[in-house]
Formats: sequence, structure tokens, C-alpha cells
Amino acid sequence: MLKPGPRNLITDIPGLLVGCVEDEAVRTGVTVALCPEAWTAAVDVRGGGPAVRETDTLRPENSFSKAHAICFSGGSVFGLGAADGAVAAMSAREMGLKLSPGTPAIPIVPAACLHDLANGGDKAWGLTPPYRELGMKAVAAAGEDFPLGSVGAGRGAMAGTRKGGLGSASIDLGGGLIVAALVAANPVGTPYMADGETFWAWPFEIDGEFGGKRPGADMPSTVEPIPDDSKLGARLKAGANTTLALVATTADLSTAEAQRMAMMAHDGMARAVRPSHTPFDGDVCFALASGAVSLGSDPMRGLQRARIGAAAADCVARAIARAVHAAARGGV
Amino acid sequence: MLKPGPRNLITDIPGLLVGCVEDEAVRTGVTVALCPEAWTAAVDVRGGGPAVRETDTLRPENSFSKAHAICFSGGSVFGLGAADGAVAAMSAREMGLKLSPGTPAIPIVPAACLHDLANGGDKAWGLTPPYRELGMKAVAAAGEDFPLGSVGAGRGAMAGTRKGGLGSASIDLGGGLIVAALVAANPVGTPYMADGETFWAWPFEIDGEFGGKRPGADMPSTVEPIPDDSKLGARLKAGANTTLALVATTADLSTAEAQRMAMMAHDGMARAVRPSHTPFDGDVCFALASGAVSLGSDPMRGLQRARIGAAAADCVARAIARAVHAAARGGV
Repeated sequence: MLKPGPRNLITDIPGLLVGCVEDEAVRTGVTVALCPEAWTAAVDVRGGGPAVRETDTLRPENSFSKAHAICFSGGSVFGLGAADGAVAAMSAREMGLKLSPGTPAIPIVPAACLHDLANGGDKAWGLTPPYRELGMKAVAAAGEDFPLGSVGAGRGAMAGTRKGGLGSASIDLGGGLIVAALVAANPVGTPYMADGETFWAWPFEIDGEFGGKRPGADMPSTVEPIPDDSKLGARLKAGANTTLALVATTADLSTAEAQRMAMMAHDGMARAVRPSHTPFDGDVCFALASGAVSLGSDPMRGLQRARIGAAAADCVARAIARAVHAAARGGV
Repeated sequence: MLKPGPRNLITDIPGLLVGCVEDEAVRTGVTVALCPEAWTAAVDVRGGGPAVRETDTLRPENSFSKAHAICFSGGSVFGLGAADGAVAAMSAREMGLKLSPGTPAIPIVPAACLHDLANGGDKAWGLTPPYRELGMKAVAAAGEDFPLGSVGAGRGAMAGTRKGGLGSASIDLGGGLIVAALVAANPVGTPYMADGETFWAWPFEIDGEFGGKRPGADMPSTVEPIPDDSKLGARLKAGANTTLALVATTADLSTAEAQRMAMMAHDGMARAVRPSHTPFDGDVCFALASGAVSLGSDPMRGLQRARIGAAAADCVARAIARAVHAAARGGV
């Protein structure tokens, strides 16, 4: 049976670093995933209320279609400033495109935010929201290990009516081929089945990584489209929303191939959260490919691409459940 | 508890008619869903190998963004000719846009096809593939009742390594608000969990509509991204692919709102088939809105739109399982 990588984190992809920082008074945070050599990148925006930056930059027909980092943040539109901070901090470290001698390095940092403005933290920041500074700190904090739960971009997150958070998971497909996911889970929908205890993601769980609860024979059918356990069922503000996901692989995907990986990764969100992709969610999946492992040519390449996309979906589903499981246990 | 409509078919949407025809020698078929008054229509193409017609016509920024029928067919690119036949047959019945006196009625018939060319039927049609004629016959056959299983566009379908087929399901959300789905299920992935017997869609089943099998306590974890029971696992030709879906509602959705419904409906495919949306599937969801029921204005409209989208995803998942269940029992 296949196993996760050594950390069961997205940093099982060699070369990828993750930094998480929080502002406890504001009850929010930022997570930056760094790949300083600029990896092939793609994105698929599927939510009805996205807050994003530099996503069109990654379209396959554009010139660069790579990224030096992906930035996730709380704070809705204010959180987009976190990428400003990350760009400044990375450029100061000479990370980024170097187009002309004597000019600043240009890091490409696509970003997406979740809405945590109504979570009770102190949001009276006036003209100085904290996100730019948090973005700079997250770059400085980047490393191979990072915590899960109510941390980083998931610090102020809610998954349905329960605590959401930051999650990650990986799978080792053999031969150096690794697939992994990082999520900040703050969906309108619920990660729990009708019993309120079993994660929708249960069929994909490996070695009890999110508690090992499985559906009993008495599990009720899921018929009402808007479950009580969702933000819509609770009639909460519709703005409290969004699952942000990043999937990454060691494969040598092209930008267009990474786009397909990002598209398939959304299926993991669909399987782990019900409902997903509502008019109120800003659901988005980024994809990064380090290129360390060659997939060769068709027809085996096509098969491997399907396998990687399917694995990315599974990792997203597992990462969402791990986020909520860790947040519930951490009690932050 | 909510219940399906009286037929548990997409024709529970008043005014919608469905016609199914087959060519037994070719082992293929066509299904046409007719809404002769031209309903608001949208589409979301998510597979990596789509075969479609008139999909860009439905973009919200375009002039008409409505459809008089949606046509599903086997036959890959040859099947697109079924819409030619449907257009001719409908125009002869005065169905369609009437722009100038004395000129033919112009029916808008968006279409999508699945790949069943390798299913063993006689495909030696040379310059005269059967699809145009099947499209005309499907219009003539349209009515409120239709069979499920190995019929219509699902006649030659395979779901993973098992028989696929045509499926449908509906849900009555009360107050005249109905949501329903029609699918032709021919996915690369499998509709079955790791035991090979329990449908992935089991949590959404109503009243044993696809056999009532639920996962036992001994259900193995689902870890390998490419299940043995998929076409990829069996190393079948990658071209044998695609789930086609149509979701419909009585709500007064705009084209853009119907687009969101189509997007959310793909989550039902993700939940019912693993993997979905691979590079080899031509997965597509159309959406139709009859407009009989007003959703009013925000904020309740937004909530209702989320509920309709979630219901559409559930109906797609149920319809896929009903398709495969009926095909397995029918033995055609």
C-alpha cells in the first residue's frame, strides 16, 4: 500500500518551504509556500466569491506561468496585501526574476484569501491592516516543518459551524514521484457527514491521520442540500467562506498539465466538504510542479498525469480533514 | 425528509421532455432533452477530452444564452451529428427562434458526446454515421417517461470496467422548486468504492433507488489513485471516457446563476466517480432553468441558489449510480 511522505506535509516535495504566522489579536494569519527557483504553476478558481492576485499571470498562454511562492491569507480583500509583503521580503533576499542588472529581483507570488472578518478578532485596523507585515514574517518563518490546525492562513477559519484551519497531506507514489496538498479550510459547507462526527473524507484516510472515525451502519442519508452544520444552515453571514488549496508534485508537468492537476484537485474539495463551490465560497486550487521527476512521453505520461491528478484530489480531501481535526484538538 | 419528484426523473421538471433511441448493431444511442420554449441554459466543461457543440453560445455575455434542447450522444466526434438531426427535426416542428417570417425556425441545441467507439459495436459506417438520423428519431421519441440503464446516449457506455448507462434523479425542494439531473455515465473512473460493490454515491441514496448497499465496517481505505476497477487501472484505451450531465430546475435562474449551478453539479460527479475529470474524460455539465418559480431577491436568493447547486450535485451523484445500477440489472 502507498504511504504518505516522511512528514505527511506538502514540504515532502523537496525544495518547497512553508511559513506560517499569526496575529492573535486580529485572530488571523498568513501562510506562504516558497519555491525560490520558480516552479511551473497553475490555478483553477471555482468559488463564487474569490479574492485572488496574479492568477491570470499563470494562464498557459502567458509568458512566465511560474511562481516563486504561493501566498494564502485570512482577511478577505485586505489579506491580498500579504503578497505585497512576501514580494518585498523575497526580493530583498534576491528571490525572483532577475531581468536587468541593478534592478530588484521580481518574485511572482500568486495569492488567495479567505474571509475571516466576522470571527470576533479585532479588525479595527483602519488604514493599516496587518497583512503586509504578516506576509514578510511568513517568508522569514519558512521551513520544512509547520503546524496544522488554527495556524497561519487558517488561524481564524471556520469549517461550517466548526473550527477550520490549516491542513496538509502527502502521498509517495514511488520512483521519486510525490504528490501533496496544503489547504486553508474555511468553507461554507461542512466537512462532516450527517452524524456530525464522521469526516466526508473518511474513505481516503491513511493510518488514522484524522482520527479514524468511520460511518456506522446507522448513518442517516444525506438529503437536505443545505446541512444544519453548514454556515448556510446556521444562517451565518454568507461572507464567511472559502477553501484555499495548493497541490504540488515532483513531476515535470507543463503549465497546462499543472492546470489539469489543479482542476482534478477540486474534486478532493467536493468529496471532503458539502456543499462546496457555492456562490459564497472563494474556493481556489493552485498547482506547483518542481520538475524533478520526468514522466516521459505518452501514452504512459497521460496515465501518470491522471494518477497525479487523482492523488492530488485525495491529498486535498485528507488535508481538509486533517485541518479540521487538528483545529478541534488544538483548541486555539 | 425531502423526496424525489413523482418520476424520480429529470422530466419531473414540468415542460421538459426526454427522448432516447438506440442503434443495436452499432451499440450506441442518442438522448435529447427538449424544452421547446427555450429555457435559460449554461454549461461547464471540465473534462480533458470534451466533444461539444454550441457550448460557447451559452456564455453569459452572449446574446441568447438559452437552449431549445440539449443533445447527448455516443460516437465521439461522429456523435456531434446527432444535434444536426435534432435541429432539423425540431425546426420542421416549428421549434426554435423565429427571426424572420418565411425563414426556418432556429433551434439552439448544445450537445456533448461520449466515446463508445471501442465497445464492440459495428462502427464501419464509412461516410454515413448513424447519429444524424438518431438525433431526428430522439426528438420524435421525446416524452415524460424514459428508461434508465443501457439506453439512449448510455447504450454503449462503460463506467470504469463495468457497464455504464443513462441515469436520472430528482428532488422536490418544496414550493414548486424542483431540481433534477440526467446523465450518460461512461467515466474512466469507477462508480464503486474499494469493495467493488458499494457505490461512491451511497450517502446520497434515497429509498434504495440504486440498491441500498452501504459500506461495511471492513471497507478498505482508498489509497491508490488509479483503482483497478477504472479504465486506467485496466489499461484500456484512454479514449473510452466521459460523463455527460444535464441538471435542471424550475427556478428563475439567470444564465450566470445557471452557470454556477452547472459548476456545483460537477461536485456530484466528483463524489460519485473516482477519479473524475481526468485528462481523458470529456466531462461536461449543462444546466437548464425553466423560470417557473421565482427565487426573489438577496439575501435569500443567494441562499436558495446555494441550495439548488448543492441539490444539483446530489442529483448528479444519484443519477450516475442509478445509471450503473440499472445497466447492471438490465443486462442489455
